Amino acid sequence: MMRVALLGAGRIGQVHAKAIAAHPGSQLVAVTDVFPAAAEALGAVHGIPVRSLDEILADDAIDAVLIATSTDTHSDLIEQATAAGKAVLCEKPVDLSLERALACQSRTAANGQPIMIGFNRRFDPNFAALKAAVDAGEIGKPELLAITSFDPAPPPVSYVKVSGGLFRDMMIHDFDMACWIMGGAPARVTAVGSSVVDPGIGAAGDVDTAVVTLAWADGRIAVIKNSRRAGYGYDQRLELLGSEGLLQAGNVLENTLRKTTTAAGAQSAKPLHFFLERYMRAYEAEWAAFVTAIQSGGRMPVTLSDGIAALACAEAATLSRTSGQSVEVTPAMLGA
Amino acid sequence: MMRVALLGAGRIGQVHAKAIAAHPGSQLVAVTDVFPAAAEALGAVHGIPVRSLDEILADDAIDAVLIATSTDTHSDLIEQATAAGKAVLCEKPVDLSLERALACQSRTAANGQPIMIGFNRRFDPNFAALKAAVDAGEIGKPELLAITSFDPAPPPVSYVKVSGGLFRDMMIHDFDMACWIMGGAPARVTAVGSSVVDPGIGAAGDVDTAVVTLAWADGRIAVIKNSRRAGYGYDQRLELLGSEGLLQAGNVLENTLRKTTTAAGAQSAKPLHFFLERYMRAYEAEWAAFVTAIQSGGRMPVTLSDGIAALACAEAATLSRTSGQSVEVTPAMLGA
Amino acid sequence: MMRVALLGAGRIGQVHAKAIAAHPGSQLVAVTDVFPAAAEALGAVHGIPVRSLDEILADDAIDAVLIATSTDTHSDLIEQATAAGKAVLCEKPVDLSLERALACQSRTAANGQPIMIGFNRRFDPNFAALKAAVDAGEIGKPELLAITSFDPAPPPVSYVKVSGGLFRDMMIHDFDMACWIMGGAPARVTAVGSSVVDPGIGAAGDVDTAVVTLAWADGRIAVIKNSRRAGYGYDQRLELLGSEGLLQAGNVLENTLRKTTTAAGAQSAKPLHFFLERYMRAYEAEWAAFVTAIQSGGRMPVTLSDGIAALACAEAATLSRTSGQSVEVTPAMLGA
Amino acid sequence: MMRVALLGAGRIGQVHAKAIAAHPGSQLVAVTDVFPAAAEALGAVHGIPVRSLDEILADDAIDAVLIATSTDTHSDLIEQATAAGKAVLCEKPVDLSLERALACQSRTAANGQPIMIGFNRRFDPNFAALKAAVDAGEIGKPELLAITSFDPAPPPVSYVKVSGGLFRDMMIHDFDMACWIMGGAPARVTAVGSSVVDPGIGAAGDVDTAVVTLAWADGRIAVIKNSRRAGYGYDQRLELLGSEGLLQAGNVLENTLRKTTTAAGAQSAKPLHFFLERYMRAYEAEWAAFVTAIQSGGRMPVTLSDGIAALACAEAATLSRTSGQSVEVTPAMLGA
Repeated sequence: MMRVALLGAGRIGQVHAKAIAAHPGSQLVAVTDVFPAAAEALGAVHGIPVRSLDEILADDAIDAVLIATSTDTHSDLIEQATAAGKAVLCEKPVDLSLERALACQSRTAANGQPIMIGFNRRFDPNFAALKAAVDAGEIGKPELLAITSFDPAPPPVSYVKVSGGLFRDMMIHDFDMACWIMGGAPARVTAVGSSVVDPGIGAAGDVDTAVVTLAWADGRIAVIKNSRRAGYGYDQRLELLGSEGLLQAGNVLENTLRKTTTAAGAQSAKPLHFFLERYMRAYEAEWAAFVTAIQSGGRMPVTLSDGIAALACAEAATLSRTSGQSVEVTPAMLGA
Repeated sequence: MMRVALLGAGRIGQVHAKAIAAHPGSQLVAVTDVFPAAAEALGAVHGIPVRSLDEILADDAIDAVLIATSTDTHSDLIEQATAAGKAVLCEKPVDLSLERALACQSRTAANGQPIMIGFNRRFDPNFAALKAAVDAGEIGKPELLAITSFDPAPPPVSYVKVSGGLFRDMMIHDFDMACWIMGGAPARVTAVGSSVVDPGIGAAGDVDTAVVTLAWADGRIAVIKNSRRAGYGYDQRLELLGSEGLLQAGNVLENTLRKTTTAAGAQSAKPLHFFLERYMRAYEAEWAAFVTAIQSGGRMPVTLSDGIAALACAEAATLSRTSGQSVEVTPAMLGA
Repeated sequence: MMRVALLGAGRIGQVHAKAIAAHPGSQLVAVTDVFPAAAEALGAVHGIPVRSLDEILADDAIDAVLIATSTDTHSDLIEQATAAGKAVLCEKPVDLSLERALACQSRTAANGQPIMIGFNRRFDPNFAALKAAVDAGEIGKPELLAITSFDPAPPPVSYVKVSGGLFRDMMIHDFDMACWIMGGAPARVTAVGSSVVDPGIGAAGDVDTAVVTLAWADGRIAVIKNSRRAGYGYDQRLELLGSEGLLQAGNVLENTLRKTTTAAGAQSAKPLHFFLERYMRAYEAEWAAFVTAIQSGGRMPVTLSDGIAALACAEAATLSRTSGQSVEVTPAMLGA
Repeated sequence: MMRVALLGAGRIGQVHAKAIAAHPGSQLVAVTDVFPAAAEALGAVHGIPVRSLDEILADDAIDAVLIATSTDTHSDLIEQATAAGKAVLCEKPVDLSLERALACQSRTAANGQPIMIGFNRRFDPNFAALKAAVDAGEIGKPELLAITSFDPAPPPVSYVKVSGGLFRDMMIHDFDMACWIMGGAPARVTAVGSSVVDPGIGAAGDVDTAVVTLAWADGRIAVIKNSRRAGYGYDQRLELLGSEGLLQAGNVLENTLRKTTTAAGAQSAKPLHFFLERYMRAYEAEWAAFVTAIQSGGRMPVTLSDGIAALACAEAATLSRTSGQSVEVTPAMLGA
């Protein structure tokens, strides 16, 4: 039985707490948060004590920590927790700064503790089915990947200002999906973006609508479309053209009802509206994969290097968008 | 907090146990089964004691029982449990004998305890969405309902012999769906059936493939198709034509992946293969509806009368199939 | 080059005239109609003379006639035209009277002229693809066929009165589809119907909504649903369960546009609204099949016996609907 | 009745000949081709004389010409035909050289003859329905357009060498779709491409797989994906995100059959395999729109300026692909 402490009791921490508690191989034993009230509330739901970070790190009976704190603390906590001998599952992104993430990688390399980065979408059953089909060679050699990823509504400008920008905050997921499906980081990144949804986002120096093209050295290409606003819901799709066919992983709809009338034609349900609904099962599968990897001593299904690769793409995209030039993803950016 | 005992620790009892335990308003406190080992195993999973039926019924601290025993015990247990002051959620069917079910209704009428019959499909989100759309008048007046309900594989002939026949064992669900959607029992039933899947089922006096037509006095019609074998999975669909449009509730697929190749065209996933996967959420919603109805003192969402109406349809279908004539559903058959 | 005369210049005659004129192997050379103005109009469009029926039948340069006159003239015209040495393609049904159709069969058997009955739906590319898949064994042995066939709007009661009733007028197509797919006529027919759409149709002794079940001696079953009104359009679907899978042939939609909004969910187009749009290609393919069969001296793709089988089903359904009993389709009814 | 001569009797000329001949408002009266045999063959099919280009241009009884010759002759023929007083429908592209196309525009401006460029996809009923929905405001303000356009198989390298490259030869259609839907040419073009399908295409200096992003001054973005090979067929889709919803225009499938089996899941048909099948109706509608515009004296539905805008995008994409920089579409490039 793996004994786990939760660092961070906010919205996403609560999701993880449920997955940890429900898994037969893990036990949630403590929680901490910079807001004591949040920690107390989560502790009460799960019947576990609120403890300080130092107590948790010092407790040898705690095997692992799940880091669900604010992004700017991720690197520090990964370093502290692994130094204290804990296995780590850390929410994405590793850091907003690629430089800082690379430092984290250097500093943690020596202690050898397992670190997994929480790219939950890899564990969505639909995307996982696409990845399995690609790897099984069902469409031959992959050639052109298209990722559609739209949020239901834009965040407030105040959030945008501290978010690191759309490429690091939102498209980071899609960069990881692209690297995962293609089996490694791209050679070049080309980005185009605008603030056609909310000019306030543009005034804050960010974009709300963007198209980024990733090119691999062998000629494979991926294109990612992001919008901060798709009024009808959370739109998450993958499409991969290979030498022998096409794979498409679609949205999960609210239900299977279909109504046909003269006035409105054939109507079916919208995609599930929010990421917690769409990816509820993915979070459970993500945690199960972490537990399995620890128990089997196998490779982490998402590594710190994976987190850095996605961040390198975001860095390159940010630069490309402002310069109007395609930007190389160098080995140094990947910590290689 | 409703305190609940589980009667019957088999496959379906285990499903209900999870739903009871997971609901914040109910607590699973005891289990019993004619096979002690089954009760012990379930008790161990949920950390609850195995007790005898008599102890459970005599314990005033137990508010409700969930009856998931074999069908031939349902009526007896409903009578005993309600006489002992327990609220009851009983698995379908009420009984294989319509006469016995009607007697159960008479004997329990006096004690006034709440009784709900477990027609889980009413709580499937897709079918519930169809029912809500009908009731909201979205397609005008209902006219012609079609129910498709295929199992993945036929049961062994040994089971068929004690099952009460396809109409009481399998189509009972579809009779309930038809009565539920149309808002009451039909006036006449016409049945056609054969054993085209397995002649052994025919030799045992039953059918494995059947089409039953229900006609209401006002001209509305429902048709139910059943097959014991749809190799590709569990096929569960509703389709309702109304004066102003069509409603269709479809299957839930294993995932949303779609592959297009020259050799095989566009391929997508099969329906979820087994009823426990397809109706997992329905069982949870069913239990929640029971708890809510008890707590609010409201009407049971599925009554003993509903269970009798479905059984009356099954009785009429059985008779029609062998006689080649349509059979009336009389008020007496409905306990009215 | 086959030289063809058209008997009947109404709506369906005009459709056939186009197909005859467009086919490289046939030439439309004359037209006749009891309404001279209709014949004149069609003749002008195609640049062909209006001639009397007698002239057409006496002209040895005319190889074939297409009979698109009113139903009550079909049997007479088939007899006259074949006696005059013409090949015949006759619109469905052969006759409203099964007895008259059987007599037509007897009288034409001797002259040996080719006769094809115009069941156009067999030539719909979607239904033809289903038939080809069945015959290729793609779903194993056929077991349960379901046919959905709804018209957009009911005809006036005045038409209903002379139509021969829904079973002979509308469901005749579906009886043919069932016999065609199953490879022969059923053993028994069971019919249920009502006038839930228009009570006036009921007052005229007919139904507007009906479910008919066909049972074959070997246990295979087909069920046909008809409604005179599906406001959203012309709804024409086949679904066949076999021992190894399911085949479904769906509607043809107006276009492939799909709109997703918060207010209305995902909206796609309705089925093509009218039979001429849906079956336009089928009429062309039907004519081509006739020409090919004549040229090759092969078997007619739809025979007079096929027309009689569909009519026998309609006769049995009419009787079953009023008697409440299943009705046998005897060898005598099939002219065997 | 418009009297029309066809210049060019190749594959696409034959398609146009049928549309011209079938339209009630136009008459095909002559054909010419640099290969006399091709002209003779087409003339025989349509019963029209083969004439020289000079004779056609000199014949005052000819109202219009359809130019379906090789691309390098388009500009010259547009100039000669309009100078001779003919209305012109010219196949795309106007020219491989933007400079030459702009010169053609200057030289023809004075004579005032109607010129339409044959971007047939605008007349596809599915894409036209999308355009109509956008213009009706059904999804609010357009923000992000995605065009998928894959050919079934790559052309031989020998063709690639004289084609002008993928951007001018294949993506030219998609540039036109983007400008049409967005209501004008973009401000900047960013292109990425590779020869992942056939290295021989790369050796010839071209690409077979490409992603091009178009950005408008107001922040709207379009992204076009092209591949020379989608083994499963001709894949042609549009998807437009607006401020209030999403529009998607999908492929047309070979038929509506769907097969579900354990082994292969649910299988449906591939897209129509070839552009002539997919766009057959579009070519007819294109010709009808030309005739209507001439007869009504209204604006051409696709102008020479539209052809130049698409060509300017192709020019910019070609430059961007090799430079790795986004390229501005200047007013001069648009002939403005």
